[in-house]
Amino acid sequence: MTSGTVKVKLTISYDGHAYSGWQIQKTGLGVQQRVEEAFVKLFPNPVRLHASSRTDTGVHAIGMVAHVVLEKQQFRMTPSKLALALNAHLPQDIRVVSASQCHDDFHARFDARGKQYRYFVWNQTAHNPLLRKLCWHIPQKLDIKSMRESALLVVGRHDFKSFAATRSYEMESTVRTLFRCDVRKQGSLLTFFLEGDGFLYKMCRGIVGTLVQVGQGKIAPGAILAILETRDRRAGGMSAPAHGLVLWKVHYPPRNARATLSGGSPLAAL
Amino acid sequence: MTSGTVKVKLTISYDGHAYSGWQIQKTGLGVQQRVEEAFVKLFPNPVRLHASSRTDTGVHAIGMVAHVVLEKQQFRMTPSKLALALNAHLPQDIRVVSASQCHDDFHARFDARGKQYRYFVWNQTAHNPLLRKLCWHIPQKLDIKSMRESALLVVGRHDFKSFAATRSYEMESTVRTLFRCDVRKQGSLLTFFLEGDGFLYKMCRGIVGTLVQVGQGKIAPGAILAILETRDRRAGGMSAPAHGLVLWKVHYPPRNARATLSGGSPLAAL
Repeated sequence: MTSGTVKVKLTISYDGHAYSGWQIQKTGLGVQQRVEEAFVKLFPNPVRLHASSRTDTGVHAIGMVAHVVLEKQQFRMTPSKLALALNAHLPQDIRVVSASQCHDDFHARFDARGKQYRYFVWNQTAHNPLLRKLCWHIPQKLDIKSMRESALLVVGRHDFKSFAATRSYEMESTVRTLFRCDVRKQGSLLTFFLEGDGFLYKMCRGIVGTLVQVGQGKIAPGAILAILETRDRRAGGMSAPAHGLVLWKVHYPPRNARATLSGGSPLAAL
Repeated sequence: MTSGTVKVKLTISYDGHAYSGWQIQKTGLGVQQRVEEAFVKLFPNPVRLHASSRTDTGVHAIGMVAHVVLEKQQFRMTPSKLALALNAHLPQDIRVVSASQCHDDFHARFDARGKQYRYFVWNQTAHNPLLRKLCWHIPQKLDIKSMRESALLVVGRHDFKSFAATRSYEMESTVRTLFRCDVRKQGSLLTFFLEGDGFLYKMCRGIVGTLVQVGQGKIAPGAILAILETRDRRAGGMSAPAHGLVLWKVHYPPRNARATLSGGSPLAAL
């Protein structure tokens, strides 16, 4: 990055229904592509967005974070005007929620210290037509107490290979730390909160699918520990469908605390 | 109704997006028509649904109530099986949430003692893509305190002609009692609660639109009383769009209390 550039941090929300996820796939359009196209309407040079995460096909986001480098001489508006201008060129299912100038060495992916995903289930005989594209419908009665008991067992530092799809463990470690895994019940709406320092490919959906099977009595609450130990995806439960999952928030350390935090607990930055 | 028939009470949820409202209109398909078509798949004779309310084009429902009379010799399933069977023939945007046999003299419309509507607003610079079809987007900051002050003034027994569309006052009284009118704020989501013994055509949307204009500083909080007194729709504020409005619940007196309640306070039945 040269001194003739400006780095901007964007927070983006999207309805994942129509997209192949954040990235372009052979199977369809990525959200990233749409946002980059909106930039092209505003600035002459093509830009590249760098995002904190890749969400999978059909997964939604409330607080996806990405950064972008712009030519200073072209960028003659305030960041909040930039958000408005981008939204004018984006479809209704993608919104830039906020934009702000960030430090030159900020990196949306490498600086992320934690992420929160939420997963929504509608647990009633009939689905809720108003939330049908945002919730997984489970018509059978679920044993919430067992699900909570089970959820607590996956919190902490574990090898999550049993809950992730094969793709992710070819190259990197499959050990991650979950800070939070719990279930809130409000009437028929169940919200799963999953917060951790990182997530493997399809890991959230593997955990939620397994917890739902615990709630259905198909997997014993304590069995989740043995499943973790096998480090084998075939031992884990089903994968919950994409449309109930939302990337809710990405956590970064406060700017002036970055140096001291890099070796400390990621939770301290939240 | 003869002794060879069974009366069934249905609670129905729907996403109003694709419909001309509950009733068939020249402009499009009604939800009622879809549900009656599902009955035809199950029973040889056509049936007629009688609903508690008519929702307008694009308005949603969580707890619409309707009754239907079926031939006893054809109706050879439990009411809960009936709900499942109807849902199998209904599109995903309409769900029969529950079905139960009711007394022969139950009437979904004439026995209703109160209704609750909820209206959703997303109050942030950018809209929320996940809730965009369920919330009205107001980007400007709203003065919630003034809106609440104003909302309290419409609670009670009033002539609501200033807030309803012309169609409704041609034949009947425009006096209604509002039991509740308030606003809940949860982050950027505002929920308006409107509960009353009945609502004129477009009355909810007229009240919400006016309250939002109070929040924008375009109408003074106390001016709502003068607006009520004019009994003239032109004096009221704007009409909020249909897609934020949900018929949430219809209240009926408990079966054995009906006789004693008919002259008393409708709130006693809630």
